[in-house]
Amino acid sequence: MAEKVTPRSEDFSRWYTDVVQRAELADYSPVRGSMVIRPYGYGLWENLQAALDGMFKDTGHQNAYFPLFIPHSFMQREAEHVEGFSPELALVTHGGGKELEEPLVVRPTSETIINAMYAKWIKSYRDLPVLINQWANVVRWEMRTRLFLRTTEFLWQEGHTAHETEEEAQQETRQMLDIYARLAEEWAATPVIRGRKSEAEKFAGAVDTYAIEALMGDRKALQAGTSHYLGQNFAKAFEIQFLDRNNELRHPYQTSWGASTRLVGMIVMAHGDDQGLILPPRIAPHEVVVVPIARSDADERHSVVAAADRVRNEMVDTGVRAILDDRAEVTPGFKFNEWEMKGVPVRVELGPRDLAGDQAVLARRDQPGREGKQAAPLAGLGETVRRVLDEVQNALFRRALAFQEENSHRPGSYGEMKEILADTGGFQYAGWCGSAACEQAVKDDTQATIRVIPFDQPDDPGVCIACGEKAADEVVFAKAY
Amino acid sequence: MAEKVTPRSEDFSRWYTDVVQRAELADYSPVRGSMVIRPYGYGLWENLQAALDGMFKDTGHQNAYFPLFIPHSFMQREAEHVEGFSPELALVTHGGGKELEEPLVVRPTSETIINAMYAKWIKSYRDLPVLINQWANVVRWEMRTRLFLRTTEFLWQEGHTAHETEEEAQQETRQMLDIYARLAEEWAATPVIRGRKSEAEKFAGAVDTYAIEALMGDRKALQAGTSHYLGQNFAKAFEIQFLDRNNELRHPYQTSWGASTRLVGMIVMAHGDDQGLILPPRIAPHEVVVVPIARSDADERHSVVAAADRVRNEMVDTGVRAILDDRAEVTPGFKFNEWEMKGVPVRVELGPRDLAGDQAVLARRDQPGREGKQAAPLAGLGETVRRVLDEVQNALFRRALAFQEENSHRPGSYGEMKEILADTGGFQYAGWCGSAACEQAVKDDTQATIRVIPFDQPDDPGVCIACGEKAADEVVFAKAY
Repeated sequence: MAEKVTPRSEDFSRWYTDVVQRAELADYSPVRGSMVIRPYGYGLWENLQAALDGMFKDTGHQNAYFPLFIPHSFMQREAEHVEGFSPELALVTHGGGKELEEPLVVRPTSETIINAMYAKWIKSYRDLPVLINQWANVVRWEMRTRLFLRTTEFLWQEGHTAHETEEEAQQETRQMLDIYARLAEEWAATPVIRGRKSEAEKFAGAVDTYAIEALMGDRKALQAGTSHYLGQNFAKAFEIQFLDRNNELRHPYQTSWGASTRLVGMIVMAHGDDQGLILPPRIAPHEVVVVPIARSDADERHSVVAAADRVRNEMVDTGVRAILDDRAEVTPGFKFNEWEMKGVPVRVELGPRDLAGDQAVLARRDQPGREGKQAAPLAGLGETVRRVLDEVQNALFRRALAFQEENSHRPGSYGEMKEILADTGGFQYAGWCGSAACEQAVKDDTQATIRVIPFDQPDDPGVCIACGEKAADEVVFAKAY
Repeated sequence: MAEKVTPRSEDFSRWYTDVVQRAELADYSPVRGSMVIRPYGYGLWENLQAALDGMFKDTGHQNAYFPLFIPHSFMQREAEHVEGFSPELALVTHGGGKELEEPLVVRPTSETIINAMYAKWIKSYRDLPVLINQWANVVRWEMRTRLFLRTTEFLWQEGHTAHETEEEAQQETRQMLDIYARLAEEWAATPVIRGRKSEAEKFAGAVDTYAIEALMGDRKALQAGTSHYLGQNFAKAFEIQFLDRNNELRHPYQTSWGASTRLVGMIVMAHGDDQGLILPPRIAPHEVVVVPIARSDADERHSVVAAADRVRNEMVDTGVRAILDDRAEVTPGFKFNEWEMKGVPVRVELGPRDLAGDQAVLARRDQPGREGKQAAPLAGLGETVRRVLDEVQNALFRRALAFQEENSHRPGSYGEMKEILADTGGFQYAGWCGSAACEQAVKDDTQATIRVIPFDQPDDPGVCIACGEKAADEVVFAKAY
């Protein structure tokens, strides 16, 4: 832990990789393109999972589990789907010592295998809606990988639903996007833009893809969750039919939606600084670390550690996820650095003088140095800490929102947009005529893509930033992960 | 749901498959050897997961995640390990449209990839113990598969730990076996025998394998969890070394332990009857179903359903997992059959006459017919139901224990043991000299294997049931899943 990370301002990409490894979120594995999620990173993921899973269940969804392996022929039934995923497939060709007759695909996403089952289960409108989610690993063969952001294997959840009507399926698609937005904003303290993807950027096989996009510390965009309205595309490809209320056979309308361990990378890049991670309390594995400060004198150490243990227990009783770092073999300064690297939102310091004054010192990770320190009476410390944690959660969101606003531009011309993109980056709000040619031209020229067509639209979107024709929508261009 | 399942007494194996499908626990998938875990079966698995995960965390373990794909060469580093698993491997040979230089194995278990990482992370005794668990899918190519009991892909958890001393690792191995036994007995209401496996039956690469064995309704044994003491076998194969307290380089001592979705199959076979599943309340997705009983008369129906909803809410407030089945399109009798098939422990019936008398009728799933029915006042119904659920949990365990005791034999001779095995089955307690030849002879002759060498041993194990020489231990022979 002694080595410093590369400063964020010097090389954001190296800073990111350094922090992920030094904070022990993840590590490279000997397997090409795959990573190991270490306990601290997995603890963060478990908290994100719990938040999402709770919201899924509150909206009537149930979890299930479908096979990892998919017959290769299944992938080919939906024309756009196979085209989109073919270059990324991993194939199992041998099993039990024999070559297989048909290779099996290791799932890159599960629309095909799940809809093959839905064709068996859905017979009547009484069987609808089907509201199923799966927590699973998926594999997409990636050439250039980055810890959490792009790995050959990753963990995610994928929801797959089927409905009687188009309207109901559209509502589901939007509802799930809102759940992702709530996770990002209310748990991960990261503001997002909600909107629709362009044709070029939508999911292979979807009618419409909706997404939330967040702005990272290097002013690049990150897609943090997607929700797809599939129409009847997969229902037709997999022959899912039900008898409707008029006793007529029809195809259901469907959705799918997913969020992944990439959210961990988002949290690192949205909040971290040169000292390491800064974790929003609601999803931090530990909200508080208590560090006793005592000289080696055994008596003093004993009484301070005992008091620190009481303080930790009181916080745990108040419902705060608090740990005690009572290691004797390292100094308090070493511990401060380590827990700052790991982004623990609040540190409670307790020394003999604090004890004598019936107080402790609270240090906020989001406000390094003096301004983030305050003394607090030991009496009612649990309540005080809970209030400070709420303040940290809100402050992180406000800071990220201010950063997003500062870095949201409405360039007056294409030249100006190119300049901002080359110079600082950020979200570029601009009119777009809706043509794929203009979208591609901007991408070729600037590497920026249309991240979303925001749901919030101005009365008049003006003219297309690329061709100057009347714009159909205002869109957000940005370079992205 | 209308069709009856095959009676248990007529064909246990068909009964099992019928119940698993009719209760919607799982379904066959179009992928050879793989199954689909449906929401009801997955809900059961989630409850088992929560129970295990809580016990793992209470004993200091943390979750992490390691890659699905393992380089083929890794599997070959530990001699016994590769021999044991080679026939069952699935191989990925192509990725991203290209043939791979070295095939990747889809993990059948993760000792090799995890220990490759431990070699990187463990440097000093201060890094020990490492106490990590992983929830994951694994693949073992199986020729004959059965839903939950033996499938090519299954879900499980695998713990992998590393310790300074042999003693500490042995304690860990036994501690985790005890946790599996608690899950089986206290949650799944299924009594188990704890013991050590013979050399022939132990995990490929372990020094010792410990297991819990349960007796199923057809008097066959099911291995429900295993815990392995690995010694330094993998530490040596993967060159894991640490500086000990004397500043000398040493290999740590290790354990691994696992339990899988096969536990769902165990619950079906330990408790079910001809009406379907019988679920122990502690792990049932729904502990209670409330069924309003009203004629089609709209007013009556409205008031009864409203009262049933209040009853359900009161139970939920008391912490009971209760649901209301207010479907208008099916009869109460249809609902009774459906929820009996799904094994819901307690049904609450509420009709107009019950309402007039301020009472409801409780029906216990484990006591079909009149004897399991009782009227209970609406006032305090939540508490009453909670008490009845506890009674059901205990009654299921006692019944399974009595069944196990009835079917535990101490045959006086090999002839007698053969007769009992051919006739009824069950656990055969018998002396064993310890030779692999005697073990194999019994297996060839009777299909029964040594399930465990129980921890509880008599003062004198007598003579070997096969050869008549002095026995080293008393063991349990049984036919097994």
